[in-house]
Amino acid sequence: MKKTYYAVIFTSERTAGDHGYEAMAKQMVELASKQPGFLGVESVRNENGIGITVSYWDSLETIQQWKKHAVHKIAQEKGKQQWYHRYSVRVCKVEQEYSFER
Amino acid sequence: MKKTYYAVIFTSERTAGDHGYEAMAKQMVELASKQPGFLGVESVRNENGIGITVSYWDSLETIQQWKKHAVHKIAQEKGKQQWYHRYSVRVCKVEQEYSFER
Repeated sequence: MKKTYYAVIFTSERTAGDHGYEAMAKQMVELASKQPGFLGVESVRNENGIGITVSYWDSLETIQQWKKHAVHKIAQEKGKQQWYHRYSVRVCKVEQEYSFER
Repeated sequence: MKKTYYAVIFTSERTAGDHGYEAMAKQMVELASKQPGFLGVESVRNENGIGITVSYWDSLETIQQWKKHAVHKIAQEKGKQQWYHRYSVRVCKVEQEYSFER
């Protein structure tokens, strides 16, 4: 049986202009990837600035650690000040999973 | 306390060309929205054909009903035959949630 793991669904709407967002977004993915418990990330944003990022983690504890990471905190603050009109974060337990590949 | 609800994370990579995809995708969102237990949907695809759709449901049972819906089944079949290089479906229980709005 597959080990329990968690998904963090981050849905957002960007404000206009970059204002350092792209560089910070890239840095956050790199930094998250090095955290304990990180399993993977998938991220898509469309031409209207609507984005969904899903990151996968081994426990609620490692998700909390990443949320509280000092550098991530700075990014979160910039996100509220400048980068996002709105966002939602949902921490979820993955209950079932299946895939298709051609 | 907020009622328990579920998220279905559908991540995918499209093949080239439309082949009836856009019309069917629109129809599936409309049809899903009318199903018992449907709470909402967010969907983003970028210029590289990578997409993430998250739908929200009130129970695992209503998710299963939608999965088995006759018209949805036809769309799923077309998805495997033609529209997707790959996809993954993750059924998740939402454990925590928070939002920001400007």
